[in-house]
Amino acid sequence: MKEDGIGSGQIIRRKEDGLLEYHRDDLTIEEPLEIRIGRKTLATTMRTPGHDEELAAGFLVSEGIVRRRDEIDQFSRPDAGRNRENIITVQLAEGVKVKLGSAKRFGTISSSCGICGKESIAAIRQNFPPIVSAKDVRIDIETLLSLPALLRELQGEFTRTGGIHAAGIFDLRGKPKVVHEDIGRHNAVDKTIGRALLAGQLPLDRHVLLVSGRASFEIMQKALSAGIPIVASVSAPSTLAMKFARESNQTLVGFLRPPSFNVYSHIERVEIERS
Amino acid sequence: MKEDGIGSGQIIRRKEDGLLEYHRDDLTIEEPLEIRIGRKTLATTMRTPGHDEELAAGFLVSEGIVRRRDEIDQFSRPDAGRNRENIITVQLAEGVKVKLGSAKRFGTISSSCGICGKESIAAIRQNFPPIVSAKDVRIDIETLLSLPALLRELQGEFTRTGGIHAAGIFDLRGKPKVVHEDIGRHNAVDKTIGRALLAGQLPLDRHVLLVSGRASFEIMQKALSAGIPIVASVSAPSTLAMKFARESNQTLVGFLRPPSFNVYSHIERVEIERS
Repeated sequence: MKEDGIGSGQIIRRKEDGLLEYHRDDLTIEEPLEIRIGRKTLATTMRTPGHDEELAAGFLVSEGIVRRRDEIDQFSRPDAGRNRENIITVQLAEGVKVKLGSAKRFGTISSSCGICGKESIAAIRQNFPPIVSAKDVRIDIETLLSLPALLRELQGEFTRTGGIHAAGIFDLRGKPKVVHEDIGRHNAVDKTIGRALLAGQLPLDRHVLLVSGRASFEIMQKALSAGIPIVASVSAPSTLAMKFARESNQTLVGFLRPPSFNVYSHIERVEIERS
Repeated sequence: MKEDGIGSGQIIRRKEDGLLEYHRDDLTIEEPLEIRIGRKTLATTMRTPGHDEELAAGFLVSEGIVRRRDEIDQFSRPDAGRNRENIITVQLAEGVKVKLGSAKRFGTISSSCGICGKESIAAIRQNFPPIVSAKDVRIDIETLLSLPALLRELQGEFTRTGGIHAAGIFDLRGKPKVVHEDIGRHNAVDKTIGRALLAGQLPLDRHVLLVSGRASFEIMQKALSAGIPIVASVSAPSTLAMKFARESNQTLVGFLRPPSFNVYSHIERVEIERS
């Protein structure tokens, strides 16, 4: 009755012919995850269960707490308790310090929130300097246009539940590296970045991040924290996402809906003609 | 060059015929708003500017800090400073106390976050008892089906920017009471509830809340805080939204796409046949 990331429930559906019927509906699972560092709660996020270690790792990257695999010692769960599946504890490696100045104000964050606890936008910018990337970090248009279909192939749940976000990291030739889904857009991004961290693959300075929905400020910030120079979204970016991308030397592509797309910043990384 | 809630920027667009052109694009504005109570920062949310007083008021309702208009004395802005438009201070009426236990852990919340600072889901449930509503609080199917078109008529920006959420409150006959838009779904809901609070109209115990996107746990929680018995969403609810609605005695309608819809909880408030 329950698959990875999907729950179901008995509901009543009004069909197109106006008749009502009982129906078993697939729903995206939303459950809280409390992320602890040692004994301290860092954040609670509403997420789709599964890949919690990746989620926690990616969250720590975007918070500027860790940058390398060896800065995390291990993950653990409480030994007992009703909600043990909703708590994950990260043991940092010896000597890795959490700046409580940035983390102390964290509270519960919802399924769509990713920058809780930041003192200000300016502070975020300061923590992560702009991208410095090589001249050959470029993507050609055909590759870019191929990404949305690839992402849809690699995710499976959206078509069934209609309520999940996907994020994927691809190399500059369009080869998928990691794809994750979550009810929260920022969680899907955290999971992909966390996976890369755990595989020792940061910074992702020769990669593209594609998100299934909109591109907000926080998506750009998370990409920056992982060193990702190109971010594409299937839907609209916000004004602040565009501004942030321009200042952070990130290429931002929006409305990536083949054969069209918009480029909001740093078009020099989009290869107009094949060499 | 700038209208309410919309900014624009010079971008490059790849057209369907493969040619590139410079293009001026409308984008939804995303800017932080810091909500202060007196001198203390309660939360910072990424929002679309406009109706900040409503947003702050609705946020305070969903946090259980205020329930009546007269519990808010006044709103103010800092006298000077570069970011004064991004800060709003609420002066509570004498005697109104903020439980710091629930608010002390607030941090910055993003454009899609609404429950920061909560110690636990259980605590949220405890703060707001289930809906108690009269037997005649019901909506007929024709009225329910008319709401999405009404919401679209009353909002204007989405079609242009593709990046904004809408929330509307309607009475049981489908008459719109208030509609707001925001880049964050929860902000759109806060603005509608805040407007109602400021007009002295809480609780909204004979009203329906319609949201343009998905229904998450936090949307149900915000509706509950305003006493709203019926919540409808154009897209999918999460498992936790359904569970919360069932426990809170709220009717939850999802995928409201005429002529179809799903009912996830408390169908007794949906009038199957006209009386």
